[in-house]
Amino acid sequence: MLEAKNPQKTDLENLGEFGLIDHLTKDLPQSQPSTKLGIGDDAAVLDHSELQTVLTTDMLVEGVHFDLAYMPLQHLGYKAVVVNLSDVYAMNATATQITVSIAVSNRFSLEALEAFYAGVRHAAQTYGVDVVGGDTTSSTKGMIISITALGTAAPEKLCYRSGAKENDLLVVSGDLGGAYMGLQVLEREKAVYAVNPQSQPDLEPYHYIVQRQLKPEARKDIPELLAALEVKPTAMIDISDGLSSEILHLCKASKLGCDLYEDKIPLDPTVISSCEEFHLDSTTVALSGGEDYELLFTIAPSDYDKIKGNPNLTVIGHMTQAAAGAYLVTRANTKIPLQAQGWNAFEDKK
Amino acid sequence: MLEAKNPQKTDLENLGEFGLIDHLTKDLPQSQPSTKLGIGDDAAVLDHSELQTVLTTDMLVEGVHFDLAYMPLQHLGYKAVVVNLSDVYAMNATATQITVSIAVSNRFSLEALEAFYAGVRHAAQTYGVDVVGGDTTSSTKGMIISITALGTAAPEKLCYRSGAKENDLLVVSGDLGGAYMGLQVLEREKAVYAVNPQSQPDLEPYHYIVQRQLKPEARKDIPELLAALEVKPTAMIDISDGLSSEILHLCKASKLGCDLYEDKIPLDPTVISSCEEFHLDSTTVALSGGEDYELLFTIAPSDYDKIKGNPNLTVIGHMTQAAAGAYLVTRANTKIPLQAQGWNAFEDKK
Repeated sequence: MLEAKNPQKTDLENLGEFGLIDHLTKDLPQSQPSTKLGIGDDAAVLDHSELQTVLTTDMLVEGVHFDLAYMPLQHLGYKAVVVNLSDVYAMNATATQITVSIAVSNRFSLEALEAFYAGVRHAAQTYGVDVVGGDTTSSTKGMIISITALGTAAPEKLCYRSGAKENDLLVVSGDLGGAYMGLQVLEREKAVYAVNPQSQPDLEPYHYIVQRQLKPEARKDIPELLAALEVKPTAMIDISDGLSSEILHLCKASKLGCDLYEDKIPLDPTVISSCEEFHLDSTTVALSGGEDYELLFTIAPSDYDKIKGNPNLTVIGHMTQAAAGAYLVTRANTKIPLQAQGWNAFEDKK
Repeated sequence: MLEAKNPQKTDLENLGEFGLIDHLTKDLPQSQPSTKLGIGDDAAVLDHSELQTVLTTDMLVEGVHFDLAYMPLQHLGYKAVVVNLSDVYAMNATATQITVSIAVSNRFSLEALEAFYAGVRHAAQTYGVDVVGGDTTSSTKGMIISITALGTAAPEKLCYRSGAKENDLLVVSGDLGGAYMGLQVLEREKAVYAVNPQSQPDLEPYHYIVQRQLKPEARKDIPELLAALEVKPTAMIDISDGLSSEILHLCKASKLGCDLYEDKIPLDPTVISSCEEFHLDSTTVALSGGEDYELLFTIAPSDYDKIKGNPNLTVIGHMTQAAAGAYLVTRANTKIPLQAQGWNAFEDKK
């Protein structure tokens, strides 16, 4: 853990709440014209003028959502921002501002929080969003992060979950299952390290999937690509809990069924090889692994030619009427009902 | 604690994350015309059209900010919303939407979360704000709450901390120190209860100050009153950390000093009598107690006649040039430098 390695750590108690906030946020740049006032008053002030505002929030808890044994704090700051921005892009909107709140126990030093904020700042710069507020306080145990993201879009650009129509094509960006397999590799290395602290893990063969877990990116490029292709998705959602769970959300909101084709699900070669190594079924991993932060959307069949052959996009199925149900069509051409096996924050962790 | 008394409690594990969110948010009404879409998609959608948006967020941690031994969960839900709305009103804005995120350990039952959300709902109705999003997840210890509030105002109506001018009058709403003295009473009763669980506390003489601690109200009425009186504050801030700390924020942001008159600080008779009982100095309590959620603002001297005699407002001092410093002028007419002794979330809790 970062804070354990640092011999020159500064106790948070010595800074006081106001000193800490000033220190951590002092060099956060602002680039959004809509940010009229950032940190420093009772509230931030934004002017989204004729555009509509989208608003989303996520909470991340140490020991539930992340493990600092293998998640560097700088990566954690980056990822915490990215998972929120992904929800903004899933509305086909532009991300503009975030607030970042953290509660930490006294085992964290100032240097640890600086590393976290360095990751936040890097993500804010990469995605062009302004950090306009937040809260920094103490916890009785561990680190808790709460981020709220705002974005803007013209009303006619917004994509809801509820707009899919029968026969629309189901499309996904990127590839799936990587973040989950990266987690399996990191969990294995953690177990090895617990037995032999002198071990030197060789993560190079797993570089892609470990990056998908530790430093995921949100698909800011997809709304831009779709605008350039003149395609407006009829419905869109981000894949945070696994493909299966998100497809069922789309079906429920749009009052439809779907056929998802197993052989169309995009998988990186590293996901396939690591699934073999861990004796896991790659389709199950893609359906239920989660944390991919890709976008899942539906388009009218007439738009197919516009996206055909684009390396970022894969057609994986189509929407059917509600009575037909939601199914996975396997390689053996049998139909299995899709089930929401997404990650459950309240499941028993024994 | 509420959850300990309830024999029919429902384990959160049995509900799953999606079921829980649906259940807790199913009867949250929406009344704001600017709420285009609330809970149920990747993000909420708001239309603040020609108005500017104000945005503020606060995190509350069990064992740091609240103690469930004497804070009923319904009151906690109410208070968590109120402390955020207070920041919106301190911008002279109208509160419109909130998001509510909570993380709880498995010691909390569904019924406990329902009680919390009942308080959230009550506050949302009382203040006319819509709950448009949030997150519900598990923690490894205790309850953590993160609320973000949005509001709107015409740009020319907004009051920043930085707008005060030399000779402006320093005005406060309501009275101060009550929440802190209510906390002293509750802490004493908790200690008595620990020794003798059969004891029946008589909190009636302390009703006002206990209410100020357990169920504070935000001053939604003050921006409305000021508009009716045709007074625009030159600067405004809410009193969450104690009068002294907030005055120093105003002085720093406006690059001014001030004279605050001890004999003008508004105190409820219950605060004075309980300070005598607890052998505390009432001025110190008002200056540093915190959690009053009153509004502190400055007005041009020419506006004095408009607020004179209003029972909601008290002139407690005036702004001076920065070089003069920030002082408390005591009843004995000596000047003592004001110090920020506001509550520090990172102080040692031994």
